[in-house]
Amino acid sequence: MALHIALDAMGGDRGPGELVSGAVLAARESDLEISLIGDQALLGTILASHGPPSSRIHLVHASQVVGMDESPFDAIRKKKDSSIMKAFALHKEGRVDAVVSAGNSGATLAAAIKLLGRLEHVSRPGIAGIFPTLKGPVVMMDVGANVDCRSEHLFQFGVMASAFSQVLFGHDRPRVGLLSIGEEGGKGNVLVKKSHELFQQSSLNYIGNVEGRDTFQGDVDVMVCDGFVGNVCLKLSEGLAEAVMGMLKEEIVKSFKAKLGYLLARDAFASFKKRVDYAEYGGAPLLGIQGNAIVCHGRSNAVAIKNAIRVASEMARNKVNDRILELLSLHRLLGQQDDTNAPVAGVTP
Amino acid sequence: MALHIALDAMGGDRGPGELVSGAVLAARESDLEISLIGDQALLGTILASHGPPSSRIHLVHASQVVGMDESPFDAIRKKKDSSIMKAFALHKEGRVDAVVSAGNSGATLAAAIKLLGRLEHVSRPGIAGIFPTLKGPVVMMDVGANVDCRSEHLFQFGVMASAFSQVLFGHDRPRVGLLSIGEEGGKGNVLVKKSHELFQQSSLNYIGNVEGRDTFQGDVDVMVCDGFVGNVCLKLSEGLAEAVMGMLKEEIVKSFKAKLGYLLARDAFASFKKRVDYAEYGGAPLLGIQGNAIVCHGRSNAVAIKNAIRVASEMARNKVNDRILELLSLHRLLGQQDDTNAPVAGVTP
Repeated sequence: MALHIALDAMGGDRGPGELVSGAVLAARESDLEISLIGDQALLGTILASHGPPSSRIHLVHASQVVGMDESPFDAIRKKKDSSIMKAFALHKEGRVDAVVSAGNSGATLAAAIKLLGRLEHVSRPGIAGIFPTLKGPVVMMDVGANVDCRSEHLFQFGVMASAFSQVLFGHDRPRVGLLSIGEEGGKGNVLVKKSHELFQQSSLNYIGNVEGRDTFQGDVDVMVCDGFVGNVCLKLSEGLAEAVMGMLKEEIVKSFKAKLGYLLARDAFASFKKRVDYAEYGGAPLLGIQGNAIVCHGRSNAVAIKNAIRVASEMARNKVNDRILELLSLHRLLGQQDDTNAPVAGVTP
Repeated sequence: MALHIALDAMGGDRGPGELVSGAVLAARESDLEISLIGDQALLGTILASHGPPSSRIHLVHASQVVGMDESPFDAIRKKKDSSIMKAFALHKEGRVDAVVSAGNSGATLAAAIKLLGRLEHVSRPGIAGIFPTLKGPVVMMDVGANVDCRSEHLFQFGVMASAFSQVLFGHDRPRVGLLSIGEEGGKGNVLVKKSHELFQQSSLNYIGNVEGRDTFQGDVDVMVCDGFVGNVCLKLSEGLAEAVMGMLKEEIVKSFKAKLGYLLARDAFASFKKRVDYAEYGGAPLLGIQGNAIVCHGRSNAVAIKNAIRVASEMARNKVNDRILELLSLHRLLGQQDDTNAPVAGVTP
């Protein structure tokens, strides 16, 4: 049976038009069923503008929208009929297999935890970022959900991201690195030093500390860090890639010869851009919840949404959570404190 | 009277040849006196290969060298006659005005603190990184000296980096941002939230939280973070800039047309490279010590060393430490704990 994905069609910076376009693309290129959650009248009008609608795209009404800057906890408490809450409610009822949202990522995570709950033995669900590298994608976790962490949280991020890397990218034994400021095990802050000991005792394919510069070399498949460091890395990378291209263009337009050169090399620039574009990976999976979800960049375009829908369906089809549970059960005693029922602190929008 | 700079001529990954070349360039382009510290016979031979030596370049013998991976504390305890210890000993005696080293940065900082001491009221000396941006350099502090920090340390980094930005880059009131994961003051980890309150109470030109992506936009002059986050940012930026250029080149060589285009745009690429090259800024100043010092990247080439010698001389000439003391005295009661005599923890190589 075809999988069914719920898309929060109201979230994101670009408005519902871009999100609906992404769903239309996804329906065209796959056999997925897609439910658009949000203002039914508005979404219906947008959908109609795309020509005869696919029978696999459905509209589900939600009367509220969570703003990009709203407090996640207020949002899930006060807006029970928001598009994001509705999407996870459908998931909980088993009517969809995964959720995709480009809205407020903190609210998305909070809604997922509240409605679906955490996976057994997971202390802190988190967000895994996918970075392009010279050799293939690297999964970095956490990239923003948990800003103050203990070592057992970092260890579980490594386990969950390994499972994701196995299932989605086909790595038998993903190489796991702990993001630090020197390669020797003794280097790093207190959190990293403690986490290093846990990883060393595990059966993960732990290659030790890695540094910021290793992120883009492709010699590691999973990079582990707390959500503060990961989020800084994510945004620094975006900013630097933009700045590099901006400065290069400034230099190029200074001379006619260089401009001509740029025109000739334009295809190369375009395929470069495609290669490093966040849109190619669609978004960032939420890992550690009893379900499948992808949070997309607020600025996501239709292609990014389409790809996120595809990755979400692959998470569901390949049962990434079963793999996480298996890997966690191998390490149940390692660094595990009985805090699975503690409130999830540090969830940030 | 001309200023006198001591260069640790044995540190770094490229060996003394590159360092001596940097000193020769600096002597040629300035009226500085420069002392090369290290193996006198070796340095004499290298210097002679550059033709008739400048009367402003001096040799000072040191019998030991600190390795790039040696523990800083072992190094300063066991290698009293290393080139880096000798350089700071000369500075302490007032025989030179500043020290430049491309060697083990942890050992350089430890030697500086041991021999020169901390500036009055400074809890934690640190390393300030200088990043190129679209509009001008941004100073990030700390980038690796202090991996576990309290809020008063972050506040002092902001004060010291502001003083440096004023004196070296001529900003009257440098815009100070606190590196976090959202612009609102409530966003961030516990450390950042506490630090935000201190900055808000200060008379610094504090613009609030900034994000990783703001680093390269040039809309902030000083970015404050702990040494773990700063070091990750520094190395991530290096790695990403290299990866971006690497991926772009891979795309370009795939087609003849693009290769031709690249040849035409080559000058633009070269001036772009110059613009983002760490060598243009020479190195990273140590701030918070009773003296002037620059730590250079281990891979520094002769141009980077020459520029570091220039920046070191500017720090001395413009009395950056007087400015730091003034700014600190304006904020003496703010977040200041009486831990100035506590051991300097967290110094990392």
